[in-house]
Amino acid sequence: MKYFFLAMGFELTVLGNSSATPVYNRNLSAQVLKVLEHFFLIDCGEGTQTQLRKFNISINKINNVFISHLHGDHYLGLLGLISTMHLFNRDKELHIFAHPDLEKIINIYLQCSNTVLCYPLVFHSLTYDKSEKIYEDKNITVNTIVLDHRIECCGFVFKEKEKPRKINKEITDKYNIPVYELNNLKKGSDYTDKKGNIIRNSELTFAPSKPSSYAYCSDTKYCESIIPLIKNVDMLYHETTFMSEKQDIAVEKFHSTTIDAADIAKKAQVKKLIIGHFSARYKELEPLLNEAKNIFKNTAIAEEGVTYNIS
Amino acid sequence: MKYFFLAMGFELTVLGNSSATPVYNRNLSAQVLKVLEHFFLIDCGEGTQTQLRKFNISINKINNVFISHLHGDHYLGLLGLISTMHLFNRDKELHIFAHPDLEKIINIYLQCSNTVLCYPLVFHSLTYDKSEKIYEDKNITVNTIVLDHRIECCGFVFKEKEKPRKINKEITDKYNIPVYELNNLKKGSDYTDKKGNIIRNSELTFAPSKPSSYAYCSDTKYCESIIPLIKNVDMLYHETTFMSEKQDIAVEKFHSTTIDAADIAKKAQVKKLIIGHFSARYKELEPLLNEAKNIFKNTAIAEEGVTYNIS
Repeated sequence: MKYFFLAMGFELTVLGNSSATPVYNRNLSAQVLKVLEHFFLIDCGEGTQTQLRKFNISINKINNVFISHLHGDHYLGLLGLISTMHLFNRDKELHIFAHPDLEKIINIYLQCSNTVLCYPLVFHSLTYDKSEKIYEDKNITVNTIVLDHRIECCGFVFKEKEKPRKINKEITDKYNIPVYELNNLKKGSDYTDKKGNIIRNSELTFAPSKPSSYAYCSDTKYCESIIPLIKNVDMLYHETTFMSEKQDIAVEKFHSTTIDAADIAKKAQVKKLIIGHFSARYKELEPLLNEAKNIFKNTAIAEEGVTYNIS
Repeated sequence: MKYFFLAMGFELTVLGNSSATPVYNRNLSAQVLKVLEHFFLIDCGEGTQTQLRKFNISINKINNVFISHLHGDHYLGLLGLISTMHLFNRDKELHIFAHPDLEKIINIYLQCSNTVLCYPLVFHSLTYDKSEKIYEDKNITVNTIVLDHRIECCGFVFKEKEKPRKINKEITDKYNIPVYELNNLKKGSDYTDKKGNIIRNSELTFAPSKPSSYAYCSDTKYCESIIPLIKNVDMLYHETTFMSEKQDIAVEKFHSTTIDAADIAKKAQVKKLIIGHFSARYKELEPLLNEAKNIFKNTAIAEEGVTYNIS
């Protein structure tokens, strides 16, 4: 039963949904995507290590950090997190995917504190001219989404790979199929028995669940060029710094309104939209939610501490 | 009545008492000293702006920030605070007193986020070879206290200046002393009336209250050279990262134990000691307090959110 639970994991936990400054108990941008037992940290605003602790996410499980851009509200928590990992004697690699200038900032930070980390920090510099695949393991790929912000900025789309077909144990037992054949069946092969009879794969296996996908888009002005990259994703996080009445300010500051985000969600035909990165001017968030829902019904607030099952 | 309340102000509010990493709802080093209506921020660990908001201290009232050293747990919150002040359209100068390398860090941070602050940031580089006066206004002086830590580090001693004598209105009215003489009386002058009679100042005024003083010492190993600088202060904050059983580790890491701090308080004959900068290994703080109290009775935990009246 436990294994089944773990295998389900494509879950997002939101740690912060405030833009620029922490207000009304809202924290700065940070999210954790859990894929099986792998934890991916997406942005890391000030206070992220406190939020991780609050929501019982072990910092030692985080091996990959993706930083969208170098406005402080999206990365200042990373410096303290790096130090805390050092304090707790981490030995595993920590991979950071970010703008190359972040490496300079981390290096000057470590130099000034006279710290030589006890674990390897592996830095992966992002580029911002076109979408690129920046990460791959046996379960997922991560591609950048080039956004349109005041400084170089990208989002990230996490896509599960095609999963193996599931063995129909009742049928494979009936045909006495040997264990060493199961991997081939999972890959879709038919089975030929000793007498040369072919048993179709579709009889021996079930179709796997559809691969899950999640796209994170913060910060950006309305930007239709991202639509092909996030088309049909199971869940889209899109920033909504402002309500639609502040459209002019949104454009000026390279941010999005609720309607911008909902429009993008609708045009990209995503399954679900969660919105965040709210301006400090909004104490109540329901008006923002309602505005977005008018255009894209399956919208929710990206609530801190809530874990969204994307599977 | 209000004026009387304000005039009383020499108050310290503790915002964080955790060392290195935030744990058990304990935050990183930061304190606000309020002298009359002037707010001095002392260290600024990650999360300080959230703590300021939590305890209703307006960030706009902070004009001077004193950073002891460049370990992240003592200054990483400053970068976000600088940005929040910008977001809220500050126009007053912000003065930062810190190691010169912090200016480099702030500059690279601002460059990377393509930010030109809307207010003047005035940087004052500290030196670490001897104590120096780094700040003075009509009410107080601030001197550094050179500490013995793994990197260059100093504490700060805030001393109120001698206050003017208080007019005894009943007596000055009796002698019909003109208003323009009152300032001279406050400074201690006698009064000579038109007939040449001398009325002694001691008859016309009350002695002012004794100037208050506060010393902040974090981080440091046991360091007797600081004693002359903090002699007789009304309140001393001294770090106590470890209990006495961890004396070896304290020395190795250039930190103090409870007993080190209490010894210093006793030798410096301070009025009150508050202790903080607790290691993440201690969930309960009472044992640390008890150890310190065995040596210096008037000791308290530097509790977050508590305001200590030093007057």
